Amino acid sequence: MNHCRVIGFDADDTLWHNETIFAAVQERYRALLARYHDAETVNRTLFATEMRNLELYGYGVKGFTLSSIETAIDLTRGEISADEIRTILQLGQEMLAHPVELLDGVAEVLTALSAAHEFVLITKGDLSHQQSKLAKSGLASHFRAVEVVAEKDEAAYAAILLRHRIAPGEFFMVGNSLKSDILPVLALGAAAVHVPYHVTWSHEHVESLPDAPGRFFQLQSIRELPTLLRDHAQL
Amino acid sequence: MNHCRVIGFDADDTLWHNETIFAAVQERYRALLARYHDAETVNRTLFATEMRNLELYGYGVKGFTLSSIETAIDLTRGEISADEIRTILQLGQEMLAHPVELLDGVAEVLTALSAAHEFVLITKGDLSHQQSKLAKSGLASHFRAVEVVAEKDEAAYAAILLRHRIAPGEFFMVGNSLKSDILPVLALGAAAVHVPYHVTWSHEHVESLPDAPGRFFQLQSIRELPTLLRDHAQL
Repeated sequence: MNHCRVIGFDADDTLWHNETIFAAVQERYRALLARYHDAETVNRTLFATEMRNLELYGYGVKGFTLSSIETAIDLTRGEISADEIRTILQLGQEMLAHPVELLDGVAEVLTALSAAHEFVLITKGDLSHQQSKLAKSGLASHFRAVEVVAEKDEAAYAAILLRHRIAPGEFFMVGNSLKSDILPVLALGAAAVHVPYHVTWSHEHVESLPDAPGRFFQLQSIRELPTLLRDHAQL
Repeated sequence: MNHCRVIGFDADDTLWHNETIFAAVQERYRALLARYHDAETVNRTLFATEMRNLELYGYGVKGFTLSSIETAIDLTRGEISADEIRTILQLGQEMLAHPVELLDGVAEVLTALSAAHEFVLITKGDLSHQQSKLAKSGLASHFRAVEVVAEKDEAAYAAILLRHRIAPGEFFMVGNSLKSDILPVLALGAAAVHVPYHVTWSHEHVESLPDAPGRFFQLQSIRELPTLLRDHAQL
């Protein structure tokens, strides 16, 4: 049976709010384009631009901002003004400067678990932005290591476990994305705890739940994590 | 005396060309704004915007592109057209998709030195872009580790040496920037080899050469590195 020595935590929407900030910005972005197109068209076109640019831009706010500007020019056939584009630049800067708001229970749970477990932060996105959010979160001292990767796939997790000499059988990953935090970790034989966030980015959507008895868990809140780990250790 | 077991290599303008690509893009950017301002004004304003945004954007092409758009809107008092902004977006995408061109001698020198030394790549910038350049470079298999950091300062180098269990006395850093590749490494007691590139970004400029006999070296070309290390080992 898997034993939990090291816990990997996802960052965005697992430790602190992120999609709600994106959603609020996209609301204002849609308002800016409302005289040209309905919300559904703006959403669909922006998502298509983001996916087309993903290989070039990677994840994160800067790539999102660039794709937002490109989409606005496309959707207005070049009629959008420079001042409106400046507003989009400012939306991006607001996201980067946004205060870090921890999810309910995160600070207490990390403090409680840190006595008996080592933590690794594993996230994707802009390196400088993720490091800045961790610094602002007040959680940095809990983490033995911080790994910002370009893509959270099986190879990336395997490299992280190898680098930190963590056996899959002693690793639990905690995150809100089945695609990025759960499936690749289960494929390596490690355990994974899914704590859904109330909003999921389309790109992270997965059809069905994984089947990995004893290694896959779902919680309503990170507050339930200490109990899960205690019960698991007593099995 | 310092002994060279592990070599840290900077990436941009040490292993492959980078500033020349930035310079060519800035040339086209200045041409785009030429009917509004002279080249000197464009350069100065763009650099000021980049520095103002550095804490939010970090290093790399995406932040540069966002700052270029912001500067263009400022310098034209909002008169720049959406199609011209699209051209700036495309310049950024061209930079990200640009082929990786190794500096003269890099492939041979890395192959020659890899028998007796371990290599770590240490670079700043966009994580996804740096990883993509390394993959395109054909050099990835030479490196025991790849470290993309938000800032190349003393703390970042200390963390890397600690993580990889490298003593300062057995580490040589090779790079083109006195500020990012040489000074912080010398401050840790490790050795550093400066191989200047023919263009230096203003932000990396340093007034005077460091004074660290036996630990600081300057070469004209990376081709001279094997001889330097051989001579050094025989001292």
